[in-house]
Amino acid sequence: MNSFGKRFTLTTFGESHGKAIGCVVDGVPAGLEIDIEFIQSELDRRKPGKSDLETARKESDAVEILSGTFEGKSTGTPIAMVISNTDQKSKDYDAIKDIFRPGHADFTYFHKYGIRDYKGGGRSSARETAARVAAGALAKLMLQKLDIEIVGGVCEVDGIGAESLDFDFAKKSIINALDKTKEKAQIEAIQKAKEAHDSVGGVVLTLARGVPVGLGEPLYYKLDGILAEAMMGINAAKAVEIGDGMEASRAKGSTNNDPITKGGFSSNHSGGILGGISNGEEIVVKTYFKPTPSIFQSQDTITKENEKSICNLKGRHDPCVAIRGSVVCEAMMALVLADMLLLNMGKKISDIEKIYKR
Amino acid sequence: MNSFGKRFTLTTFGESHGKAIGCVVDGVPAGLEIDIEFIQSELDRRKPGKSDLETARKESDAVEILSGTFEGKSTGTPIAMVISNTDQKSKDYDAIKDIFRPGHADFTYFHKYGIRDYKGGGRSSARETAARVAAGALAKLMLQKLDIEIVGGVCEVDGIGAESLDFDFAKKSIINALDKTKEKAQIEAIQKAKEAHDSVGGVVLTLARGVPVGLGEPLYYKLDGILAEAMMGINAAKAVEIGDGMEASRAKGSTNNDPITKGGFSSNHSGGILGGISNGEEIVVKTYFKPTPSIFQSQDTITKENEKSICNLKGRHDPCVAIRGSVVCEAMMALVLADMLLLNMGKKISDIEKIYKR
Amino acid sequence: MNSFGKRFTLTTFGESHGKAIGCVVDGVPAGLEIDIEFIQSELDRRKPGKSDLETARKESDAVEILSGTFEGKSTGTPIAMVISNTDQKSKDYDAIKDIFRPGHADFTYFHKYGIRDYKGGGRSSARETAARVAAGALAKLMLQKLDIEIVGGVCEVDGIGAESLDFDFAKKSIINALDKTKEKAQIEAIQKAKEAHDSVGGVVLTLARGVPVGLGEPLYYKLDGILAEAMMGINAAKAVEIGDGMEASRAKGSTNNDPITKGGFSSNHSGGILGGISNGEEIVVKTYFKPTPSIFQSQDTITKENEKSICNLKGRHDPCVAIRGSVVCEAMMALVLADMLLLNMGKKISDIEKIYKR
Amino acid sequence: MNSFGKRFTLTTFGESHGKAIGCVVDGVPAGLEIDIEFIQSELDRRKPGKSDLETARKESDAVEILSGTFEGKSTGTPIAMVISNTDQKSKDYDAIKDIFRPGHADFTYFHKYGIRDYKGGGRSSARETAARVAAGALAKLMLQKLDIEIVGGVCEVDGIGAESLDFDFAKKSIINALDKTKEKAQIEAIQKAKEAHDSVGGVVLTLARGVPVGLGEPLYYKLDGILAEAMMGINAAKAVEIGDGMEASRAKGSTNNDPITKGGFSSNHSGGILGGISNGEEIVVKTYFKPTPSIFQSQDTITKENEKSICNLKGRHDPCVAIRGSVVCEAMMALVLADMLLLNMGKKISDIEKIYKR
Repeated sequence: MNSFGKRFTLTTFGESHGKAIGCVVDGVPAGLEIDIEFIQSELDRRKPGKSDLETARKESDAVEILSGTFEGKSTGTPIAMVISNTDQKSKDYDAIKDIFRPGHADFTYFHKYGIRDYKGGGRSSARETAARVAAGALAKLMLQKLDIEIVGGVCEVDGIGAESLDFDFAKKSIINALDKTKEKAQIEAIQKAKEAHDSVGGVVLTLARGVPVGLGEPLYYKLDGILAEAMMGINAAKAVEIGDGMEASRAKGSTNNDPITKGGFSSNHSGGILGGISNGEEIVVKTYFKPTPSIFQSQDTITKENEKSICNLKGRHDPCVAIRGSVVCEAMMALVLADMLLLNMGKKISDIEKIYKR
Repeated sequence: MNSFGKRFTLTTFGESHGKAIGCVVDGVPAGLEIDIEFIQSELDRRKPGKSDLETARKESDAVEILSGTFEGKSTGTPIAMVISNTDQKSKDYDAIKDIFRPGHADFTYFHKYGIRDYKGGGRSSARETAARVAAGALAKLMLQKLDIEIVGGVCEVDGIGAESLDFDFAKKSIINALDKTKEKAQIEAIQKAKEAHDSVGGVVLTLARGVPVGLGEPLYYKLDGILAEAMMGINAAKAVEIGDGMEASRAKGSTNNDPITKGGFSSNHSGGILGGISNGEEIVVKTYFKPTPSIFQSQDTITKENEKSICNLKGRHDPCVAIRGSVVCEAMMALVLADMLLLNMGKKISDIEKIYKR
Repeated sequence: MNSFGKRFTLTTFGESHGKAIGCVVDGVPAGLEIDIEFIQSELDRRKPGKSDLETARKESDAVEILSGTFEGKSTGTPIAMVISNTDQKSKDYDAIKDIFRPGHADFTYFHKYGIRDYKGGGRSSARETAARVAAGALAKLMLQKLDIEIVGGVCEVDGIGAESLDFDFAKKSIINALDKTKEKAQIEAIQKAKEAHDSVGGVVLTLARGVPVGLGEPLYYKLDGILAEAMMGINAAKAVEIGDGMEASRAKGSTNNDPITKGGFSSNHSGGILGGISNGEEIVVKTYFKPTPSIFQSQDTITKENEKSICNLKGRHDPCVAIRGSVVCEAMMALVLADMLLLNMGKKISDIEKIYKR
Repeated sequence: MNSFGKRFTLTTFGESHGKAIGCVVDGVPAGLEIDIEFIQSELDRRKPGKSDLETARKESDAVEILSGTFEGKSTGTPIAMVISNTDQKSKDYDAIKDIFRPGHADFTYFHKYGIRDYKGGGRSSARETAARVAAGALAKLMLQKLDIEIVGGVCEVDGIGAESLDFDFAKKSIINALDKTKEKAQIEAIQKAKEAHDSVGGVVLTLARGVPVGLGEPLYYKLDGILAEAMMGINAAKAVEIGDGMEASRAKGSTNNDPITKGGFSSNHSGGILGGISNGEEIVVKTYFKPTPSIFQSQDTITKENEKSICNLKGRHDPCVAIRGSVVCEAMMALVLADMLLLNMGKKISDIEKIYKR
């Protein structure tokens, strides 16, 4: 299953070392100006090789739109986007052709499908997230029309957590760090791990502002449920929190409930979601990324024939996937909100009359 | 949207104080013995009023099957189950008719739909989870045929965490506690909160054993993604972890990767899922519940007309929703696995030939 | 798979001789007045035993709403409806317990599922269409708010075709005949078949007026495509036409194209649909029903053990299923249009702004 | 909505005069040999310009596979295919930029989306069916592994009907004619229409052999229902029949029921489907195509500004769309059957045990 969303739908395709990766985005409303430069700029934020804290794979990640626009605007038909793979070093993968890399999906893909594209992890590679970012950029274009903004960044690296959040700073930081005062220590942690041929984990905070009250489908397509799926489905994600998340489980009802005032909620422990539906406050989601499984130390593993073996990786890898992951989190949140906005239309008979009544 | 799953599908209906709640379960394979006593016993584990640590609402939660079985077996047609609402004290809710309870979905439902069934929270009540448990019991019956077992319990209450896990003990504990040595302190925390007219949060651990390798659909219906949606969608859930979860984000790749041996994985930091697909190890999920929003202290709120007001609750409420929530977590995991088992059939051309080749 | 529709969704359950049949309708917009008498009156139009041209099975088909309404209005939550089975003569079916009735689904259900509820055909019985009619009545209530009207009736019985259409007359005719001048001959054909222990086929015309331009989803949820699925999925349907249908295939482009004028289309060969999207003209659909497979003549068949056998039916059956089928066709068209109305919201960015812009 | 199918899923994109059209096919089982030459040969059967009875547009329709295969086999990941548009004469369409062509989707797209890609009909062009044929070829490759064969052809042109069916002849006929003895008259009818600047309709018969018993999902994803949707959704289709179709509605039950014998059914009035499920006999579907709406006569129409106008077409068009439509019908039937094969896995608990039991 390679599609996400019900009304604003993303279908992706492509493998790490195939000809191209890409996506088809269906449900984009007609009449939206499609700003290709913006889409490319989002891809540029995610693309590899921007610093030595990222994989050395160089991809221009130039996006080409094949369909769905006319004279610069969306037509309501599916928008297909393709990104060619250019800097492939498939040779790097010959050594792992017959073994399963620990922490990777090699073992599970092989057993699920009985066949495995071993080059760069094939379909399981995080390279696929470029397609998510391209689609997320389309979603953002739609959200902008409704004054909904999504921001985010890295709030923790290797256990070094942000104490304050500066979303503008994150945009300039080479590690998308949210706390300027922690950035240096976080960078050092990454570099240290890299030098030790190891990797570190990290945490990403993503936030949406200006979300109208009412988004989210009870009871089985809840806003928090789908955000959880969206974030947990990103490569290397292992935990998701909404609002206070885990901390809420250690609070009392009397402190965790957000009092309601005429102007809105006077606190936001809930992270902007009650009963699976947005309440007008900021939507706050944290995504926890494990350390990159690709490390340059010897690891115990087995071969396809179930013989003991050792995994010694070559290739080019991010020592901390959370960094580029933060751009993907934004994209996924944008996709979820765009989908929920469309799904929420028609919930009241009065809204339906507003659109159709002659 | 009130359906969950793609092949083993649950559709629920009903409000807290309506005539009945219930569900339609579609996709149950034909030929399965439908053990009604087992279904009822699962409902009994969830039903309210079993101790004074739970709401005093008394519901027998007697399930009636309306369709889909013949001579004790499933026929492959939808199984509808209905549970009547009997102990309704709708009068308790007159006082909140025009105000929004903090921490509840009153505000969001009212704004989404323009109308609100205020009696017991209507559709947003956790009473709906009885339908999930009934459906989950059907899923468990199917999983049992494949020797897949789901266990779970409460691993933390009000910050008091389990240090060891005893799933058999949890079945006997009135708070489904996983650590016998912590149960007393956890109970006291709940009682103390109750006496203070307050509530506490808690954490639930759910585990599946015997899951075959290969369940989970890349890239957008991943096993971890859908488990996250399933758990986050339960009332009061605010965070979900797979395997080491948050701790993974603070580990190094060299310690977090699970080495692979001829007999399987030599550790299980991943929680049994790699690349969104089960790897044959135990599936481990933690769900974090906020404290029950229904507390018996005065809280600031507003009326439907956006006037300042005070919320003073009557009614009967669980001081810690995680307790009964743990039974619901098991049900949701069972539903996810049953669905994934069906979805995974037909992934290899050889499996298809095995079924169809004459 | 027992659900129909994507946004206005019908899920049905129940067997001919089980406890009850019923449905869950999800996606009904909130704030709609739920006129139970209207729903019951629609069921009464379909219910068996109204004349001796129909099965003698007597069912009151009294509908009970279990959820989804509050103070007489829809709340946006799923509306569950249950209809009890009362006049069951399961004994009638003992004789066919081990054989497959020709023209029925006995053979296919048995082989698909390996188990068969033989009483009255179980799930494959046309009794299930009562649930469709109840759900269709909800859809009609929604369509009425937008001044969309659905009418229909029987336009042919046993080859005796209508020459003019009178939808008001059809409502009064015991065979829902559209042409008053043909009704008598049509009734006689049915009676003659009945006396000969045989059955006849018929054709139903269904029409929607007041449908706005723009309903239908290109390219794979087209209005004509889904109407075709909806009608072909009714028990005993074997062909579906849109507009001129088959006749169009014998016309020239110069006569089949509908010229466009300032006031609309000057003819309606297309049946109100162009490119899978409604064009504002009347939606015209014809559904062709085969003769009831239940006849009271000896028929060659086999047993479950694949032994030669003879099928001699008892029981009570309609000699012409098209008659009651016409009510079901209306219901299906109503469901399709309600679904398409919801799906069509959000196709233009301007519509989205109309709903959300503050 | 631009996706078709639930498990074997086709998503298409692209416009008549855009850069490319294409598709993503998801759910192709892993391990299938992907014979690109076969896919191309299917596209060649559909491509325009093979004779002067078809549009003069010359497209090589060369397909490029971007993903989803590895060393010649499917990997279980989505297969993306792209077909470039090369012979575009967009200038031909300047004249119709502001008017709606009668019989086309111009009017409905414009009103649905508020914007229209007028070049060659944009998304509504039958050019999109090339993507269906490419995907259908993948489905055929899967069906071949199970010895399921799909054949078809044109059984009527301009009212001149086939009296016998020769599927091998149809493959060689320039109009895919099923009856050798009628081909000449049918060709002459097309030529005559062409000379008169007019167009003719036609009928396509499509047939599947070797389909196992049990395909089709009751009650709302029935095999006949979905075939009806699939065929009716093809450009210009206006009616669909299963088996005897309309004729069944004029038959008696005693002649229409197919007797069952130890070796199967002794006739096939049902067209291989009972209760929405395949019965092991040949699946027989007829699709009725209207005459091509593009004719070279003056037609009354209006402009986008709702002013009276005249439509005088230039461009290149098929005088009878049924011819190339017959290849598309085969593709759609292949897609439906592939999807149903996958959906049908897991209907019996014994099948599930067969796959998973260790």
